[in-house]
Amino acid sequence: MTDKPLDVLAIGNAIVDVITDADDAFLAAQGLDKGSMRLIDQGEAVRLYGEMGPGRESSGGSAGNTVAGIAALGLKAGFIGQVADDELGRIYAHDLRATGVQFTTPARSDVGASARCLILVTPDAQRTMNTFLGAAQRLPATAISAAEVSSAKILYLEGYLWDPEEPRAAMEAAIDAARAAGTKVAFTLSDSFCISRHRDGFLKLIDDGRIDILFANEDEILALSVESDFEAAVAAVAPKVSVLAVTRSEKGAIAVAGAERAEVAAEPIERLVDTTGAGDLFAAGFLAGQARGLSLETSLKLGAIAAAEVIQHYGARPEADLRMLAGNLLS
Amino acid sequence: MTDKPLDVLAIGNAIVDVITDADDAFLAAQGLDKGSMRLIDQGEAVRLYGEMGPGRESSGGSAGNTVAGIAALGLKAGFIGQVADDELGRIYAHDLRATGVQFTTPARSDVGASARCLILVTPDAQRTMNTFLGAAQRLPATAISAAEVSSAKILYLEGYLWDPEEPRAAMEAAIDAARAAGTKVAFTLSDSFCISRHRDGFLKLIDDGRIDILFANEDEILALSVESDFEAAVAAVAPKVSVLAVTRSEKGAIAVAGAERAEVAAEPIERLVDTTGAGDLFAAGFLAGQARGLSLETSLKLGAIAAAEVIQHYGARPEADLRMLAGNLLS
Repeated sequence: MTDKPLDVLAIGNAIVDVITDADDAFLAAQGLDKGSMRLIDQGEAVRLYGEMGPGRESSGGSAGNTVAGIAALGLKAGFIGQVADDELGRIYAHDLRATGVQFTTPARSDVGASARCLILVTPDAQRTMNTFLGAAQRLPATAISAAEVSSAKILYLEGYLWDPEEPRAAMEAAIDAARAAGTKVAFTLSDSFCISRHRDGFLKLIDDGRIDILFANEDEILALSVESDFEAAVAAVAPKVSVLAVTRSEKGAIAVAGAERAEVAAEPIERLVDTTGAGDLFAAGFLAGQARGLSLETSLKLGAIAAAEVIQHYGARPEADLRMLAGNLLS
Repeated sequence: MTDKPLDVLAIGNAIVDVITDADDAFLAAQGLDKGSMRLIDQGEAVRLYGEMGPGRESSGGSAGNTVAGIAALGLKAGFIGQVADDELGRIYAHDLRATGVQFTTPARSDVGASARCLILVTPDAQRTMNTFLGAAQRLPATAISAAEVSSAKILYLEGYLWDPEEPRAAMEAAIDAARAAGTKVAFTLSDSFCISRHRDGFLKLIDDGRIDILFANEDEILALSVESDFEAAVAAVAPKVSVLAVTRSEKGAIAVAGAERAEVAAEPIERLVDTTGAGDLFAAGFLAGQARGLSLETSLKLGAIAAAEVIQHYGARPEADLRMLAGNLLS
C-alpha cells in the first residue's frame, strides 16, 4: 500500500460540539442517561440548548476527531462529511482544514442546518451527548469518489453514520471502492445504543468480510457478540476481522490479529477533565500505527498516548503536540 | 443605592471569541504586535481566519466577560450590546443569559454579521486580538433605556466601544441617564491603542466629572496621563475620579480613592494558560466589591481572585465556581 498518498480517509458525521458543564441533578431533571449518546431533532436541540449553561464550541464528530488526530501525528488524512452552507458549517470546514486534513465535500444549502452535539460534562469528566444530525445525515453517495477512496491506505467509517439512510448508502459505496482498490476498511461500532439499533447490519458487514479493522469499547463488543463475558466476546468477534481493537477506559486496550494478541495499559494522566474524544483519539493513534505498518503493540501505545492527551482538556481534538508525545514510535 | 435591583449594568461589544494557538513566527509573518488588539474589517477577518489554526469558539467581549463574572460571583448583572440575527449572535445571547445575566437588546438583521475576535494565544499565554466589530458597532442610542440604567447601582462602559460613532452616542446617553438617577459610572480604558485614538474624548469624560470609577492597566494609565513613571501617572489621574483601579499583571493591582490607597498582590496560580479576560475578570471582582459597598482592599482582592481563575484556562469567562473562590469576602 506504499504508493497511496493518504494514510487514512474517514467518512463521518460533520458535527460542531457545544460543550457545557452540568451536574447530575441537571441530567436527572432532563431525563438523560449519563455517558450515552442520543439523537435529537431540531426542536429538542433548541429546547435543551435554552436550558443548558454557556457553551464552548469546537469542531467534533467521531471520525472527524480521529482524522484531526492522525494529521496531528504527522500522517496524511482526508475526511468526507456533510455540512450545510452556514456559520457552523464554515467553522467545521475551517477547523478540519487548519489541522491539515483534506476535506473537499461541498457544503449543501438544501439540507437545513449543520449538525451540532450538545455535550454535558459532569464533574466526573463523563460526557452525555445530544446530537442533532441536521445536514450531516444528508451525505449523498455522490460525495464518494472512488479515486479518493483508492488513494488511501485505510478507509475509516463511524458506526454513528449508519443511522441515517443516505450516508449509509454512501458508506456502502465507499466500502465497495475500497475493496476494489486494496484499501483496508476500518470501522468503529461507535456506541452501544447504535449497536442495538443496527446489530444485524453491523454483523452482516463483518460476516461478509467487508471490515478489516474493527474498533469497539467494552460495552460495544459485549452488545455486538451478545456475550456477558469480555473474553468470550473478544473470542467471538476477533476471528471475523483481520484486526480487532478494543478500548477499556482506565484499564487500557487490547488488540487481536489472528493468533497475535497485544495489550497496553492506559497512559498516566495529570488530571481528567473531559472524556469526550477518548475513543476517537485512540483510533487516531492505532490507525496511524497500522497505516505505517507498525506492530499491534506500538499501534495500541500510540492510541493510548493520543487518548490520554484529549481527556486532559475540554474538547475532542488534540491541543498538545501529538508528534512530540509519540516520540520515536512513529519515526 | 440599596433599592436598585441590578448591581451592575454594562454596555459593551457583543463579541464571540475564536481562540487558537499560534507561535511567534506566525505573529511575525502576519505582521502582528503581540499582546495588542486591532480592529479588522470583514475581508481581513476572513483572510486571517483562513490562515489560522483550528478555533475554539466561546462568547467574549470585554464588558460581557465582566458581567458574566459578576453573575458568577452571585450578583445581579445586565448587559446592553448589539448582535446580528445570526448563529454567532444566538450563541452570544445564549451564553450570557445562561450565566444569569439580563440581556434584552434585540438582535438586528440590518447590520451585517455578529462581531468576532480572532485571538491568537502564544506559548507564553499572551493573547493577540483581531476584532471584526460587525453588528457590535451598530448599537443604537435607542437600545438604552433610562429606566434600566437607573435600576443599576453601577453602569459599566468599555473604552473599546468608543471607537464606532453609533455606540459612543448610546454610551453618552447612558451616562446622562446614570448621572440623573444616582447610578455610579464606571469606565475601562480597555487598551492603550484605544487611548491613542481617543485620548481627548476620554480626558473630557473624566475632566467633566462623568466617570466615578476608572479602570486602567499600567500601559493605559501611562498613555492617558502622558507620564513615563507609574506613580506620577497615578498621581495625575487619581484626583479626577472617585475611584481609580489599576492592574499591573503579575505585580497585582492598586486602587486609589481620595486619600485612601490599597494594593493587592496577584493571586498564586498553578499554570498560566491564556491571559484573555484577565482585566475583564479583575473588573468583575472589583465592581462586585464596590456594588456591595466593600473596602478598596476587599474589592481588589475579589478582582485578583476572579482574574487568577480566568487565566488558568482557555477562554475569557469563568469556569470554576467564583462564589466558592471568593469565600466569605462577599458574604
